[in-house]
Amino acid sequence: MFEGLKKARQRARDRASVRTVRNACRMLMSERGTANSVKFAAQVIEQYEALSGEAHAEFVTMLAEEFSPDPQRVLEQAHRYAETRSAESLVELFNEVEPPRQELLRRINRAPRGAATLLRIRTELLRDLKQHPELAAVEADFHHLLSSWYDPGFLKLACVDWHSPAHLLEQIIHHEAVHAIRDWGDLRRRLQPDRRCFTFLHPILPEDLLIFVEVALVNAMPDAIAPLIDGDNVDLHPERARCAVFYSISNCQPGLRGVSLGNFLIKQVCETLKTEFPRLTRFCTLSPMPGFASWLRRGSPVDAKRLPKGAEARVNQARNLLHEAFGDPLQVPELAALEAAEKPVREALLRLGGAYLLITQYREAESDPVASFHLGNGARIERLNYLANRSTRGLRESCGLMVNYVYDLPAIERCHENFVAGKVEAAREVLRLV
Amino acid sequence: MFEGLKKARQRARDRASVRTVRNACRMLMSERGTANSVKFAAQVIEQYEALSGEAHAEFVTMLAEEFSPDPQRVLEQAHRYAETRSAESLVELFNEVEPPRQELLRRINRAPRGAATLLRIRTELLRDLKQHPELAAVEADFHHLLSSWYDPGFLKLACVDWHSPAHLLEQIIHHEAVHAIRDWGDLRRRLQPDRRCFTFLHPILPEDLLIFVEVALVNAMPDAIAPLIDGDNVDLHPERARCAVFYSISNCQPGLRGVSLGNFLIKQVCETLKTEFPRLTRFCTLSPMPGFASWLRRGSPVDAKRLPKGAEARVNQARNLLHEAFGDPLQVPELAALEAAEKPVREALLRLGGAYLLITQYREAESDPVASFHLGNGARIERLNYLANRSTRGLRESCGLMVNYVYDLPAIERCHENFVAGKVEAAREVLRLV
Amino acid sequence: MFEGLKKARQRARDRASVRTVRNACRMLMSERGTANSVKFAAQVIEQYEALSGEAHAEFVTMLAEEFSPDPQRVLEQAHRYAETRSAESLVELFNEVEPPRQELLRRINRAPRGAATLLRIRTELLRDLKQHPELAAVEADFHHLLSSWYDPGFLKLACVDWHSPAHLLEQIIHHEAVHAIRDWGDLRRRLQPDRRCFTFLHPILPEDLLIFVEVALVNAMPDAIAPLIDGDNVDLHPERARCAVFYSISNCQPGLRGVSLGNFLIKQVCETLKTEFPRLTRFCTLSPMPGFASWLRRGSPVDAKRLPKGAEARVNQARNLLHEAFGDPLQVPELAALEAAEKPVREALLRLGGAYLLITQYREAESDPVASFHLGNGARIERLNYLANRSTRGLRESCGLMVNYVYDLPAIERCHENFVAGKVEAAREVLRLV
Amino acid sequence: MFEGLKKARQRARDRASVRTVRNACRMLMSERGTANSVKFAAQVIEQYEALSGEAHAEFVTMLAEEFSPDPQRVLEQAHRYAETRSAESLVELFNEVEPPRQELLRRINRAPRGAATLLRIRTELLRDLKQHPELAAVEADFHHLLSSWYDPGFLKLACVDWHSPAHLLEQIIHHEAVHAIRDWGDLRRRLQPDRRCFTFLHPILPEDLLIFVEVALVNAMPDAIAPLIDGDNVDLHPERARCAVFYSISNCQPGLRGVSLGNFLIKQVCETLKTEFPRLTRFCTLSPMPGFASWLRRGSPVDAKRLPKGAEARVNQARNLLHEAFGDPLQVPELAALEAAEKPVREALLRLGGAYLLITQYREAESDPVASFHLGNGARIERLNYLANRSTRGLRESCGLMVNYVYDLPAIERCHENFVAGKVEAAREVLRLV
Repeated sequence: MFEGLKKARQRARDRASVRTVRNACRMLMSERGTANSVKFAAQVIEQYEALSGEAHAEFVTMLAEEFSPDPQRVLEQAHRYAETRSAESLVELFNEVEPPRQELLRRINRAPRGAATLLRIRTELLRDLKQHPELAAVEADFHHLLSSWYDPGFLKLACVDWHSPAHLLEQIIHHEAVHAIRDWGDLRRRLQPDRRCFTFLHPILPEDLLIFVEVALVNAMPDAIAPLIDGDNVDLHPERARCAVFYSISNCQPGLRGVSLGNFLIKQVCETLKTEFPRLTRFCTLSPMPGFASWLRRGSPVDAKRLPKGAEARVNQARNLLHEAFGDPLQVPELAALEAAEKPVREALLRLGGAYLLITQYREAESDPVASFHLGNGARIERLNYLANRSTRGLRESCGLMVNYVYDLPAIERCHENFVAGKVEAAREVLRLV
Repeated sequence: MFEGLKKARQRARDRASVRTVRNACRMLMSERGTANSVKFAAQVIEQYEALSGEAHAEFVTMLAEEFSPDPQRVLEQAHRYAETRSAESLVELFNEVEPPRQELLRRINRAPRGAATLLRIRTELLRDLKQHPELAAVEADFHHLLSSWYDPGFLKLACVDWHSPAHLLEQIIHHEAVHAIRDWGDLRRRLQPDRRCFTFLHPILPEDLLIFVEVALVNAMPDAIAPLIDGDNVDLHPERARCAVFYSISNCQPGLRGVSLGNFLIKQVCETLKTEFPRLTRFCTLSPMPGFASWLRRGSPVDAKRLPKGAEARVNQARNLLHEAFGDPLQVPELAALEAAEKPVREALLRLGGAYLLITQYREAESDPVASFHLGNGARIERLNYLANRSTRGLRESCGLMVNYVYDLPAIERCHENFVAGKVEAAREVLRLV
Repeated sequence: MFEGLKKARQRARDRASVRTVRNACRMLMSERGTANSVKFAAQVIEQYEALSGEAHAEFVTMLAEEFSPDPQRVLEQAHRYAETRSAESLVELFNEVEPPRQELLRRINRAPRGAATLLRIRTELLRDLKQHPELAAVEADFHHLLSSWYDPGFLKLACVDWHSPAHLLEQIIHHEAVHAIRDWGDLRRRLQPDRRCFTFLHPILPEDLLIFVEVALVNAMPDAIAPLIDGDNVDLHPERARCAVFYSISNCQPGLRGVSLGNFLIKQVCETLKTEFPRLTRFCTLSPMPGFASWLRRGSPVDAKRLPKGAEARVNQARNLLHEAFGDPLQVPELAALEAAEKPVREALLRLGGAYLLITQYREAESDPVASFHLGNGARIERLNYLANRSTRGLRESCGLMVNYVYDLPAIERCHENFVAGKVEAAREVLRLV
Repeated sequence: MFEGLKKARQRARDRASVRTVRNACRMLMSERGTANSVKFAAQVIEQYEALSGEAHAEFVTMLAEEFSPDPQRVLEQAHRYAETRSAESLVELFNEVEPPRQELLRRINRAPRGAATLLRIRTELLRDLKQHPELAAVEADFHHLLSSWYDPGFLKLACVDWHSPAHLLEQIIHHEAVHAIRDWGDLRRRLQPDRRCFTFLHPILPEDLLIFVEVALVNAMPDAIAPLIDGDNVDLHPERARCAVFYSISNCQPGLRGVSLGNFLIKQVCETLKTEFPRLTRFCTLSPMPGFASWLRRGSPVDAKRLPKGAEARVNQARNLLHEAFGDPLQVPELAALEAAEKPVREALLRLGGAYLLITQYREAESDPVASFHLGNGARIERLNYLANRSTRGLRESCGLMVNYVYDLPAIERCHENFVAGKVEAAREVLRLV
């Protein structure tokens, strides 16, 4: 009961402080705020930062309630537009429909630390969204504005290397999401002359990486991740390389989720590398298949329509073969077992990997995010690689498989179009496999 | 008739090339365009640049016709939102109402030269708008996006001096709108240590000034423009100055008309100067009154409500006095006559100048743009100066009068609020005068 | 007599102020000076700057008298070194022989403005040297230290263009010694994409150009200067150019006379241009022959040994022909006469030009400085061009002739070696001509 | 014997390769070398780098033998100068005496990597010097040239922080000589806002730190090192600090030994900090006494003349007291014993520390290098601190004592002068102690 009292007091304090922010927001939107928006935006930011964690959701709820368009006035203008179709009525309609909080967010963005604050608010909003679907419209406003502000036209491609400022480099260590960087020595290896690390910077957040991609310049499309991650064998002649491998791509700003950055980053990096290294003929990835093992365990029937003729039977055969080879399909096979496996077993695993990828966008709510990203960007599936990732995580998530997606620049638009229309492009070898 | 034929042919060619741009725009908005928007945006830009001058308006008309929201679907969503008031319906409503051309413009902005192209399109659109009011909604979309992108949060304040790159300095010479800069020697004088020139740059247009303001650091609020413009008497101890004078502010981008830049520039410059020169106690202007002489000639009755008690009578008296002194009120007085004028005549001219400024926002369609700008920013009228501008233009436009507006930082919000509510703030002396 | 009195007083004041600088110099060289050399060096500089123009020479005389090595101690050490040949005795010998003023100059160089002050002292010293040969040892110390400090290893090659800071560009206008730049518009033309302007900067004088060379990228070796200087026909495809023409090279620091800069500049620019424009096959100049006309007028006999067989007779014939064609050999021919001249006359002038260049280093005290510079750098004479410079100065100094020197990179060392050994290299055509 | 054969072969190879470098040096000094010194200098560098470790000394010997002045010609010029005392004879004398290898080194410096190569040669030369005193004249030439080139007038003071490039920061970790930096986290703490790290960079070696000093901004002169080194309690208000502590200074270039850098660095940093933090009133160090413990163990008699009256007796008393307290004077006392020591014992140790420092410059071949450095720079001894350094090294080298030297800017010249004259300045408290 004492606890309850404490909580009640806290909630009262939270409500009071959300009222304070609300008043600051109103002031920012008032005539006084118009005259001196930077100053009043700074006050909103300061008071928002003083909120307790619990009060954050309440703050966003306040944005939803207080700064939404007026349905009645919207309806009137919609009628007028439908009747007159005039430019004037369209302008007024748009002004009525655009939620006033978009202007509020624009003004907050104007103050020092404003851009970072908006990203922080959105990070929390995204976290709360599942439990508070009524905040979806606020979230849509954030997404709308951020997509416009962080449009690639405003981003600066930068190449990060060992001459870059330490405060940028430590973000690489911190945010590397795919193949962890242990320490500064490890980082240094990834910035050797046979490597490139590209990032997008935005002028309004010059101290913060938005996203980065790590590239290895090698002779042939790689079939295992270890040689790319290990510290040894630096190739001192990157200018002779034929193949650029995007072996890791990581987002640094959770507040920018859903704002398209990776797609543009990869394409711009391809252009940049082509200019610097004219001998490059292939741009590919060596990518994880993070959902493969769990998909395998679930054993859901595959949709025959999405696969080449006869694939369904072959997939089922493969499943049986794996069951025989590794026992309980719910268990991840041991490294030793995978190493000892005979050719038919290996092929069965690769076949299932291929099937898994080819139907990625039709597996509801469980499609592979890496596959969706690259295929949606217009890449195609080029090759599956057995035991390409021997790390614990690699075995657990994908039974050691990795996949090369290829960015074939002249084919990118067609691949993307096909993917949107439901057809995944893959190399003939992959299709035959499945 | 031959001329007619030629024109007809030209129009046919124009229509064809607008169709080409339209197709490029459609492609940019398609799935293929989504996959590779930078490339297709570059095609739109290239084809737009190939249009003849006559075809530009037609291009914007196409934007108005093809990329507007669908009234019927808008109406349905407006009904749904009015009924449910749900977040989901609001999101869909906004998506229906936002004209698809906003997305089109965002994609064009993404390509190299995209930002400059959009400014060019808008410059032409603004020119055509009077004759084509049906383009107002397209113009509103431009204004909406540009205001968001060129928000002060994204602008970089830069101080331009004699160490700045020549290609930036030549823009100062070119765009100086108030007191022309004759040549590089003249420019150099304006960049001496007792002067400052501040500008806003935007990262997407790093080679182009957006706006700039010229500041003189002096001991006392100036009462004449010549000493500020002349090349002599450079004060080598700006750190002792008490007064910063904004004596010229010029926009460089006609495509950004209506996007608020000057207001933020002046306030940010005040903050910057206060930090660099802690002894500064006054921030003021020495401004022209471009519409004064023509207002004087028209002799419209003044609205007594807007002025101090008894002002109407004093204004009329002053008019008579001037008429006596200078003869025909439709003529601009000669410099010699102004110089020879006795004190009562001088006071009469200053009184009329004060009245002219105090009622600026109520003179329909003829309010003084400089006064509106500074008063709207929250400045107040501090002093009128007789024969402060002896140049031909100064005599013709304002009978030689100039005005000091003062930016009193703590009072700015109140002044702005009063101005919006209809009350112009002025120094006691000015009010007494009127 | 009154004048005499005034002068005497001035001289007394001068002597007093030179004593003040001398004391400051002594302090700088003392233990206190060692502890805080920057501060005491600043005092020397300040007091030097307070000297009158007349006192400058006296200041240098003081350096010669007070800060020279002690002959007796030098002689002792020289004996010891001759006897022992030991490392220790050599070290001590060097310490005795190096004039103490070298250390003084090193310490002055250490203060802010120190480097600029040393250049200024030397500029004045060079001017006074003819009348004061006793200052030659001081001058040698300056030359020795400056050559070491302004060694090309410390210089930074910079490319100046329209994006460069105005304060650097104005130095180009100011110092262009060969083909005057009228104004900023003229400068701008010389910085168009088909041109390059390279300069050496030294980190200790970052605001000052040391030397610069202007380069035109053209298709063929030019035979006239006007098209290179004129504002028209900018070639927008410099990447297709085959020939880089050094058409103007100017020193900016008289205080660095005799310190080799131009030689390194030209060679480094050749390397830089070869990398940027791989299609370039020829590096040449289009140079004036500033002493040709006066040499022609003097009519000194040519030294037959220095010229190809039979040249003497051909030179005399040519002289006669010119005399006939243009009359009085002491007059510069008119432009019209040169234009009207027939082929034999033209060839006679070119022949004499060739002879003039080929014997340049044997004409005592009157050798051509431009020829000495390029030939000493290892260039060869490639072609003489008739009426290549139609300006008044061009006609007066060289009867309109100009010469192309070619920098043939693989042959440079041989050419230089031959030149030092007395043999000027020239294209076969030039030799045949003479 | 087989080993002997192998060695003989190696020596033959070494001699051959030294001959190759010698020929490259001769070429560089020849006319061809003059024409294209950068190219031939690069060849010298390449061939020097190909030498085996053993051949390095032989290379320097070659420099000593081949590129020294001619004793006979020197003697003749010395006579001539002694007789005539003319400027001309002095110039020629200097030219004869300056070893030709100085010009050789200047030319090597001119090539890419030249500066770094010279530093490397000197590093090795300094190592070999003890066994090869005949190389002293070559070493003197290196020292002479490097002192001139790395004069503070050419150095750039830079402030290194967490925004600095990683390749510079890793040099801090690598070269920190006083208080080791364990890793990047440790480094980061030393670059927090209450710290400063200043370094000298030279434009010819822009990638390499020459020397750096770490500064802590604190409220009072510190009496222990641990709080400065530990990661905790960052003071976020450095602008309020009264005291700047130079707690670590490290040279990064062994090839620059004997070239005065630290003295200038400290003084320039004092000036810089005074400007940034006007509230600073004290600049001091917290320094180790690296030779104290071994001096204590040796127990040499102290020179009474160098110490205050009666000091000798007090020093001997103190020695006895310590012997009683800690036993065997040849052993370093344990941390526990030092912690447990009573006041008289503590005072005895401090007294001996004071005596050790006061006579530092008269202890032949064993003076304390840190004391010599700071006292020679003009600092004074301010306070000795008991158990200020509890690290193993601190206990072993100085029984835990540390000393504060104070840089009292107005007194610096006097202190330096006194120090050179034999008098060490110390605070009254220190003198009383001894």
